[in-house]
Amino acid sequence: MQVVKAEIIAIGDELLYGQIVDTNSHWISQELDLMGMKVVRKTTVGDNRKDILTAFAEAEKRADLVLITGGLGPTQDDLTKPLLAEHFDCEILEVPEAVEAITAFFKRRGREMTPLNILQGHLPACCTYVPNEVGTAPGMWFERNGTYWMSMPGVPHEMKKLMKDFVLPKLPSLFTLPVIFHKVIKTVGIGESWLADLIKDWENALPEHIRLAYLPSLGHVKLRLTGFGDDKSQLEQEIDQHIKVILPTIGKYVYGYNEETLETAIGKLLKQNGKTVALAESCSGGYISHLVSSVAGCSAYYMGSVVPYHNQFKEKVLGVKAETLRNHGAVSEETVREMAEGVRHLYGADFGLSSSGIAGPDGGSEEKPVGTVWISCAGKGFTEAKKLQLTQDRMLNIQLTGVAVLNLLRICINQNNK
Amino acid sequence: MQVVKAEIIAIGDELLYGQIVDTNSHWISQELDLMGMKVVRKTTVGDNRKDILTAFAEAEKRADLVLITGGLGPTQDDLTKPLLAEHFDCEILEVPEAVEAITAFFKRRGREMTPLNILQGHLPACCTYVPNEVGTAPGMWFERNGTYWMSMPGVPHEMKKLMKDFVLPKLPSLFTLPVIFHKVIKTVGIGESWLADLIKDWENALPEHIRLAYLPSLGHVKLRLTGFGDDKSQLEQEIDQHIKVILPTIGKYVYGYNEETLETAIGKLLKQNGKTVALAESCSGGYISHLVSSVAGCSAYYMGSVVPYHNQFKEKVLGVKAETLRNHGAVSEETVREMAEGVRHLYGADFGLSSSGIAGPDGGSEEKPVGTVWISCAGKGFTEAKKLQLTQDRMLNIQLTGVAVLNLLRICINQNNK
Repeated sequence: MQVVKAEIIAIGDELLYGQIVDTNSHWISQELDLMGMKVVRKTTVGDNRKDILTAFAEAEKRADLVLITGGLGPTQDDLTKPLLAEHFDCEILEVPEAVEAITAFFKRRGREMTPLNILQGHLPACCTYVPNEVGTAPGMWFERNGTYWMSMPGVPHEMKKLMKDFVLPKLPSLFTLPVIFHKVIKTVGIGESWLADLIKDWENALPEHIRLAYLPSLGHVKLRLTGFGDDKSQLEQEIDQHIKVILPTIGKYVYGYNEETLETAIGKLLKQNGKTVALAESCSGGYISHLVSSVAGCSAYYMGSVVPYHNQFKEKVLGVKAETLRNHGAVSEETVREMAEGVRHLYGADFGLSSSGIAGPDGGSEEKPVGTVWISCAGKGFTEAKKLQLTQDRMLNIQLTGVAVLNLLRICINQNNK
Repeated sequence: MQVVKAEIIAIGDELLYGQIVDTNSHWISQELDLMGMKVVRKTTVGDNRKDILTAFAEAEKRADLVLITGGLGPTQDDLTKPLLAEHFDCEILEVPEAVEAITAFFKRRGREMTPLNILQGHLPACCTYVPNEVGTAPGMWFERNGTYWMSMPGVPHEMKKLMKDFVLPKLPSLFTLPVIFHKVIKTVGIGESWLADLIKDWENALPEHIRLAYLPSLGHVKLRLTGFGDDKSQLEQEIDQHIKVILPTIGKYVYGYNEETLETAIGKLLKQNGKTVALAESCSGGYISHLVSSVAGCSAYYMGSVVPYHNQFKEKVLGVKAETLRNHGAVSEETVREMAEGVRHLYGADFGLSSSGIAGPDGGSEEKPVGTVWISCAGKGFTEAKKLQLTQDRMLNIQLTGVAVLNLLRICINQNNK
């Protein structure tokens, strides 16, 4: 089978000056890889006529698919559109449909347009207009000499929407892609090397055509199984069979598969069990509430939160006893237990969760250094608490506390169900 | 002055498959930019002979400096060294000094060497050996026809050490470097094209050696002024002078400069004025509290939050009147006003902020479609409220609400001070 070659061209001075990290190219690479396409080159060039035209010309010689991000803003330094018109040798004309879509976009937002915005609806005559529902710069699709091109805005959520809605679904009709099946096992509460040690015999016994990759990220480790073959459903069955074999060993760390996040998994668990949750966040300052409430439909199980950032409100709003705070301090097992129980009571929820710790960079002591965090989960007839010893980095401590609190809830729900 | 052009070539399949984010190129860009060199292109290619050789040949045509990362491991898929030898047409020979350094490296770490590691001390005869004190793959420096080349390992801390110890200190002796000064103006509450329209005369009147770039991101637009010249402090003065000229026009949208974020700017404003804030978040679900509390030292002005996700808690915890909820609904001006006033009272804060809206994807109606959000800011003797009409995307709505609420607070503090 012929390898289908893709190139990514990212355009913008801000990428070359190091002011922005190009996360777009990374995301595109992952998506194309999942479809069995091979990204053979990524190029970043600035807002410079000659550099952009050279990048276009070089890519056209090599690639079957060229994906371009950036340089589509309404201002003068945005060159992608006129240079695509030049590269493909065609005029820029008004596309009434595009102008209408942009006008409607501004109307929906209740904002007024400028003449520059209207010009965003003028496109090279040789491209196919691809509507951008979440922004003002349209996508543009080109075809020439067997190479397909897509130009997209550099704003990540706009680019992703155009990729997901238009480009990715189109690829199987344009190219003969190999059959690949991926399944990702999501684990939490175990480090990468520990997990590797636990599953090494199973890993070594996997057949040649099934590959395993460890993808660690903040408090999680993802195991990606990739199968290569002729028949997708057969690969899927085969991979599920291998997962079935390893689950008795790692099952207690597994919270989901593929796109599932810890917060969507928690939501599912709560819904299935008809349970509700409320949060009292001190050091995590609203971060966990944000995770929980970022899931669509969370109102079925999320009651609400209190962030009692100062101790007096742990007492006033949550009913933590003054003597508990006095005797043990805010960062203590006793306090997080009372916080979890207090917020559970306040919101009449089945589970109450809490966090209290020293996020840093200041506020640590010898006894309780920066990174010391207590978390708790209270439910009917029980209150679990756990101490974490995290890092020197404030944001990392907040994020790792989030993972630990949600994982504690997951464990409590599962134990409760036994 | 001649612009000194640099190119970065990152080598490795793992970069193309999206398994690793290339943070090296970003770091190198920043360092070169600070020295007044211009990165004109970044290229990422896989472990493939032809692709790497093409990248070398193309870069040599254009660049004064070529920085290569990756592909220097001891295994067969690491091709950078043999292909550099091929490109520069010279043999690979043992460099006794390099072999010694590698041997010493393994001895220090108490690890045993393999024959493959010894081969890492064999280098192209035409390169200058650059010792790598923190790894096994040496740096290699080449010069030909006025272009300088440095090949470095892809491991970030090894690359950074070679750059800092060898490459960066060498550059001023090789090139006449311009002096560059950047300043970024951070704005909020105005769209890119509106801003562009507002400042177009000023922009057009900027001198040739000062360039303006628009960097939009979620609810914000950054204006980057870059000055080129001979004297940094003179450029700084000159740019500050230009900023002074435009501030009367855009000042009300400007919350800070350079690395400042909206949440750090808000923190600074509150601290300067000796004021405190509390939050009642419904549709934003804790996100704004997370932003506020992510700033180190926020306990000086952040009192706490309530996330009353269900209406009953807007009443119970915040004291919103039952009839207000009944008559106007949770997503209404009346409700967000009472929420802001209620949370201000609960936490005894100077300012109370609130949000209530339909984040989506469900829950919209004809009268209040998805994306309808009310926000409010209550202070001593006033309560401001504002309606937002946002998007169909839940996460985007949450984030845009966050920007709008913090901006409303900024405006209220500033008005309060007049």
